[in-house]
Amino acid sequence: MKLSILFGGASFEHEISIVSAITLKEKLHNFDLNFIFCDGDHSFYLIDASAMKATTFSKGNHKKMPLLTLSNGGFVQKSMFSSTEYKSVVLNLIHGADGEDGTIASLLDFYNIRYIGPRTDASIFSYDKRYTKYFCEARGIGTLPFETQGVNEHKNLSLEYPIIVKPASLGSSIGVSIVKDESALDYALDTAFEYDTNVLMESFIEGVKEYNLAGFYADGKFHFSIVEEPHKEEFLDFEKKYMDFSRVEQVLKADISEELEAKLHASFEKVYSGMFEGALIRCDFFVINNQVYLNEINPIPGSMANYLFQDFPAAIELLALSLPNKTRPKVTYEYIHSISSAKGK
Amino acid sequence: MKLSILFGGASFEHEISIVSAITLKEKLHNFDLNFIFCDGDHSFYLIDASAMKATTFSKGNHKKMPLLTLSNGGFVQKSMFSSTEYKSVVLNLIHGADGEDGTIASLLDFYNIRYIGPRTDASIFSYDKRYTKYFCEARGIGTLPFETQGVNEHKNLSLEYPIIVKPASLGSSIGVSIVKDESALDYALDTAFEYDTNVLMESFIEGVKEYNLAGFYADGKFHFSIVEEPHKEEFLDFEKKYMDFSRVEQVLKADISEELEAKLHASFEKVYSGMFEGALIRCDFFVINNQVYLNEINPIPGSMANYLFQDFPAAIELLALSLPNKTRPKVTYEYIHSISSAKGK
Repeated sequence: MKLSILFGGASFEHEISIVSAITLKEKLHNFDLNFIFCDGDHSFYLIDASAMKATTFSKGNHKKMPLLTLSNGGFVQKSMFSSTEYKSVVLNLIHGADGEDGTIASLLDFYNIRYIGPRTDASIFSYDKRYTKYFCEARGIGTLPFETQGVNEHKNLSLEYPIIVKPASLGSSIGVSIVKDESALDYALDTAFEYDTNVLMESFIEGVKEYNLAGFYADGKFHFSIVEEPHKEEFLDFEKKYMDFSRVEQVLKADISEELEAKLHASFEKVYSGMFEGALIRCDFFVINNQVYLNEINPIPGSMANYLFQDFPAAIELLALSLPNKTRPKVTYEYIHSISSAKGK
Repeated sequence: MKLSILFGGASFEHEISIVSAITLKEKLHNFDLNFIFCDGDHSFYLIDASAMKATTFSKGNHKKMPLLTLSNGGFVQKSMFSSTEYKSVVLNLIHGADGEDGTIASLLDFYNIRYIGPRTDASIFSYDKRYTKYFCEARGIGTLPFETQGVNEHKNLSLEYPIIVKPASLGSSIGVSIVKDESALDYALDTAFEYDTNVLMESFIEGVKEYNLAGFYADGKFHFSIVEEPHKEEFLDFEKKYMDFSRVEQVLKADISEELEAKLHASFEKVYSGMFEGALIRCDFFVINNQVYLNEINPIPGSMANYLFQDFPAAIELLALSLPNKTRPKVTYEYIHSISSAKGK
């Protein structure tokens, strides 16, 4: 099947997206793939499959490749006397800003391009961790106690240490610190504020059980990956996560009861339904005293969490064939017509 | 000052946007205005000021005018051998879908175009009335009791009649009904479901006091319009609202105490701060037993609520000079460089 992998973006996770795209080139080798790179200055380039290696981009060699522009129904490569259209389904693989903040979703919707990835509203509710909290509260999905702080705010923290301090709107552990006591808080806040004007602070529970579950809705039902218990030190720093994004070997299923697996599935459905249709997402959960709490929603997980699926290409194909239809309201001029005719014009 | 009025859009409120734009042509006659029309098929046209009348669009005459495309920093008119750029601040005046659902905000941000209007997240939280409820709940802003229903759901309503039934994501009273008893509910739901797959139902309080307040944040402080007590029958239907969108005469200040005015200002600030910067919004409030409740947020009010401001052109100029800066994360290749050099490449 034809598929266009859209990657890059003006994001702190730009390099991670390149790694994800290279990984998917391998995992989806049976697909008829196009690679569309979004540069840091928001130009789009069509990348030849043979050039899909990290140094193409770090050396700026992508700038020698054909420029693409957005057009109704797809990307277009224009030359003096002709133009070539790329109209296949897009897999939005831009992590972080642009890709996960609703921008790319809006662009693709506006230009009537079908895509795998979160829609604009789903992006807003997952990209900024404060809004994920709003969403969970409204839907009755359990999360850990939290507080937020803006860059110009001063607050007395009521959470007990240790806490985890995160920029409100970044993934991949960038700018994240674990703070064991008050003396380390200011430094952690400064670090997080380098990436965002808002931070989120949550209780940090040493040794808490963590489970990751990916999935999507297609063809009238949910399709789940295996449940993974991520190996981790305290948490993955950027460099480890970066390597993590090139994972391809299927991981082992976590050793959990059927009852817990069913609970994780139910929580996933509660997060996904009526919001994330069209996307393959990974939910990271905590389990405390047999209760499930949502940690984070990854609406475009690293390398699409391919390593959690038994048949990843089949999953992508199924989802690509079951994308939501955005119906564009039809424009009419009935009021203007009726007013004009009343005026005798 | 230079300003580009962006209007139209693929929206049920397309015609209302045209009326708003024609109204602003009159109200901002001292500005150096461009008019950029977004057609129902998402093509952009540069409309000559002399052609800014409703029949230009209803007759399709805009299709004879120059096509514009989005480009880094502005809209561009391309011809065979040259191109003209329109780089002034944009006033997003597209009501409803496209303009208020985050799509246009994302497009303008992506192409690095400065604009008056809600950003993508602010659009999401105001366009879908369910998300406005999430937002108000999280921020401790009072609203009326509500229930939601999806098109395929069947629920037993726990609200007491009369209730008001609204499509979740439309403005301008389209698809809205007041339901006095259960016998009329199904018809009202069917009507609302013609416009959206989700509806919001709220208590309807006959004769409740309603107050509208517009405002914006610029130059380090809030700037408020007068408070209006809207004249209304039960509520404005589409045709009356349509005419309402061409209002230009300044209305009279509502006869309320200073204390209530201060409460309305405080509620407005609670809604606006850290979310609607860059936009001139109108908040519609209910007041019950001296308590303020948010009814709706209009992030792009009809004709920009010009009739509520004593000096509307000065307000727009002030806001245009005080727009938020979206900083684009700078792309670096330090990890790829470090990995490449470790490999000796």
